Amino acid sequence: MPATALAADLAAAVGGPHVLTGDDALTDHSHDEALSITWRRPCAVVRPGSTAEVAAVLRVAAAHGVSVTARGSGTGLSGAAVPAEGALVVSFARMNRVLEIDTENHVAVVQPGVTLAELDEAAGAHGLTYPVQPGEKGSSLGGNVATNAGGMRAVRYGVTRAQVLGLQAVLPSGEVLRTGGKLAKSSTGYDLTQLIVGSEGTLALVTEVTLRLHPRLPHRATVLAPFPTVDAVAAAVPKVVASGLGPLILEYLDTTTMNAITRAADIELGLPDAVRAGSDAYLLVMLESRTKDRLDADVEELGALLGGLGATDAYVLPGPSARRLVEAREHAFWTVRAMGATDVVDVVVPRAAMPEFLRRAEEIARRHGSRLAGCGHAGDGNVHLSVFEPDDDARHRLLGEVFRAGRELGGLISGEHGVGRSKRRHHRELTDPATLTLLARIKAAFDPSGILNPDISPVPDFPESDFPGPDFPVSDFPGPDFPVPDFPVSDSPVSEEHP
Amino acid sequence: MPATALAADLAAAVGGPHVLTGDDALTDHSHDEALSITWRRPCAVVRPGSTAEVAAVLRVAAAHGVSVTARGSGTGLSGAAVPAEGALVVSFARMNRVLEIDTENHVAVVQPGVTLAELDEAAGAHGLTYPVQPGEKGSSLGGNVATNAGGMRAVRYGVTRAQVLGLQAVLPSGEVLRTGGKLAKSSTGYDLTQLIVGSEGTLALVTEVTLRLHPRLPHRATVLAPFPTVDAVAAAVPKVVASGLGPLILEYLDTTTMNAITRAADIELGLPDAVRAGSDAYLLVMLESRTKDRLDADVEELGALLGGLGATDAYVLPGPSARRLVEAREHAFWTVRAMGATDVVDVVVPRAAMPEFLRRAEEIARRHGSRLAGCGHAGDGNVHLSVFEPDDDARHRLLGEVFRAGRELGGLISGEHGVGRSKRRHHRELTDPATLTLLARIKAAFDPSGILNPDISPVPDFPESDFPGPDFPVSDFPGPDFPVPDFPVSDSPVSEEHP
Repeated sequence: MPATALAADLAAAVGGPHVLTGDDALTDHSHDEALSITWRRPCAVVRPGSTAEVAAVLRVAAAHGVSVTARGSGTGLSGAAVPAEGALVVSFARMNRVLEIDTENHVAVVQPGVTLAELDEAAGAHGLTYPVQPGEKGSSLGGNVATNAGGMRAVRYGVTRAQVLGLQAVLPSGEVLRTGGKLAKSSTGYDLTQLIVGSEGTLALVTEVTLRLHPRLPHRATVLAPFPTVDAVAAAVPKVVASGLGPLILEYLDTTTMNAITRAADIELGLPDAVRAGSDAYLLVMLESRTKDRLDADVEELGALLGGLGATDAYVLPGPSARRLVEAREHAFWTVRAMGATDVVDVVVPRAAMPEFLRRAEEIARRHGSRLAGCGHAGDGNVHLSVFEPDDDARHRLLGEVFRAGRELGGLISGEHGVGRSKRRHHRELTDPATLTLLARIKAAFDPSGILNPDISPVPDFPESDFPGPDFPVSDFPGPDFPVPDFPVSDSPVSEEHP
Repeated sequence: MPATALAADLAAAVGGPHVLTGDDALTDHSHDEALSITWRRPCAVVRPGSTAEVAAVLRVAAAHGVSVTARGSGTGLSGAAVPAEGALVVSFARMNRVLEIDTENHVAVVQPGVTLAELDEAAGAHGLTYPVQPGEKGSSLGGNVATNAGGMRAVRYGVTRAQVLGLQAVLPSGEVLRTGGKLAKSSTGYDLTQLIVGSEGTLALVTEVTLRLHPRLPHRATVLAPFPTVDAVAAAVPKVVASGLGPLILEYLDTTTMNAITRAADIELGLPDAVRAGSDAYLLVMLESRTKDRLDADVEELGALLGGLGATDAYVLPGPSARRLVEAREHAFWTVRAMGATDVVDVVVPRAAMPEFLRRAEEIARRHGSRLAGCGHAGDGNVHLSVFEPDDDARHRLLGEVFRAGRELGGLISGEHGVGRSKRRHHRELTDPATLTLLARIKAAFDPSGILNPDISPVPDFPESDFPGPDFPVSDFPGPDFPVPDFPVSDSPVSEEHP
């Protein structure tokens, strides 16, 4: 960015050192972790240190007609943090304080740049927990709110949406809103909190989040159950939910995914070869309890239940193996990426429709001559598919059919990753015009001049020409692409390490 | 309504017999249960039988420029079902079918006219439960969605908002939306479901609701703990929540309320006179569990905990007494109404702020020479206040101060009753202009011509003259008012029995 009036105004808003325009900074802020999205360098990166500075930045952007993309840790999977052409990236890296752990109300108040790991540590010191764990502990709370992040524990505690009790957010006009509060409930006007959650930086910039915390239960056990077929494991899921055992984690993994993550993380589960050979899918169940006795009784009940539902066996994993397996599952994204997956998407369907959805997805992939591998948050009907299809057009058509199959079964095209850039065309194709128009009007209610993430915002009328071919061709990836085949899976905890 | 073009068009939309214009029908549909709201007769009542008919009615209303008020069972407490001047009431009495109890996905799909009692019966047949019980089992699911109803069990299962997974709704244009689905989670565009929940009939008319069901746990116990002061009971609440015992109900009642409801329902709790005399407030705790053993252990733990927190004692109530007491608490509204309460309002504050809020409310009432009695969903910080102040202006000023005290403690003016007509002026006074403007823009995004409940909808600029004196003076109540002093408390299970 040249030394323009814009640069001067931004420097006045946040201080010169917090306006970044160097090559490295612009490249670092040109992408998130979405696999199929073209990186795009912003015109500049600003790092405000307070809500007032965020408001000042937005007033400057509005005055100059520059669009704005908010960014937390950049670990999103939908490309919502990739700036529009010529946009300004607002990084929340400096707004990273846990403002309060309120032990009386079981609430945390945090700035958006706080990571899940930092919040968990702060809450844990008081015997409390923030239960949302989308698999990337380096992700920021601001980003979690923007995508409505989920993860394995959502089956018990709900997704981010269920934890957000209140927000402070800045409108594009620079006006500051406060919604909700440390309140278990509210029937006081439209729920602006829930409207902003999941809006992917298109409505307002969140500058403070009030989150529900939960008592940290001391006892946990992890059970791994191999099943002969994916169908059988998917059919078992509603019964486990109905049992009232209230699992903390209820994941399914197909053989491809299970083999990949155990190999990548060098985990030896000690399953007999015959069991592994005869299994097509696995159910991973974690239970938690207030007392050891209850946990033991629950594990026993779960084992019997799984046996009756067709599991070959049910293994209670020793603590260290359990932790490593869960961690490896959390990092499945990195594993399949290293294996050459060209996209990783999530789809949500009614949980009882999961077997049928997986059958259809498999059939679609076969018909396209492509390959899919899957795992997912089975208790939530949230399927994660790794797509091994290098051709952009073919992958777009393949995913289009997969998403349509999900829709036909009553599902939606994302349970937790968001629409962002990676699915916006599919979203448009699968959403009725009245809804699209309404979404665009809501966008305009918050952001009449359309400066917040404009190119992933709903617009009332989508001319076909706005969506040339596949969303963003992989082949457009800029210069130093990340080294897919040599990617060091076991050393890839956080996004900051990437190109 | 004379035999106008409007009448003819409505008859064409829903069939002549379902357009009601008789005196009785108009009076029946002129009010809900709010105590301080002037009744107002609609121009007509229509009773559509399907979503298509609702859409047709809305198109007719839009064409004729007639505003529309939706109505379920009419048991709301905020006046949101009282029509605007000359408005049409759309009654959902005929759309009263439980469309599906889906035992695999733990979901119910219902029409808006289904009552909580009907849904509970349908879910119970499958070992499932719909846990929201706002105290009026005759209330409709459509009304519950419109107000985001809560009730005693919200402390464990959350309010209506937490149960609504999807909606079918008709926009004022007659366009039909489907939001969400039988889905545990979604990150697919703005959350229209949550935006419509709690919008009090101002954004769209809900014609179908998809609701989360829960396993029905078989074992329950109810514990009543007298405390020497309201402060002590309020201070105990966060500790009970933090214990992880996960109470199904966690209510506080002050002595006035406890004496009133036990007298009205003729309940003898068998508490020693000395205990009653020395108690200023009570905590009512219900626990539930999957097994009898665990329940017994939990009850013992709870008893010890309450003792340590200053309870005089902790009585495990026998089943029939427990049921009658909980039922009497649910009907507290009718009891205090019969005692001459001139308004019943709810306020929500951070639960740890409840003691301070109650102190301030008490002090405000004393200063005004008025009287308040209280009970509430203590685990949620949701205080219900009965106001004994016959003078309209004095009551308005008193409540204004009480609401402001709640705001100052981080609260909002309604946790579950809604804003409706009864609090709209207070809402405006306590909400910042940027938020009010945004709410009005969202309203306009759904309803650009403003035909849905226009006079309780947010508008961008509220001229003071729109709000003459108190919201709606009690003295304006129409002809045959309900007979407050002679009201038969013990025979008042459902609203249909009232004048």
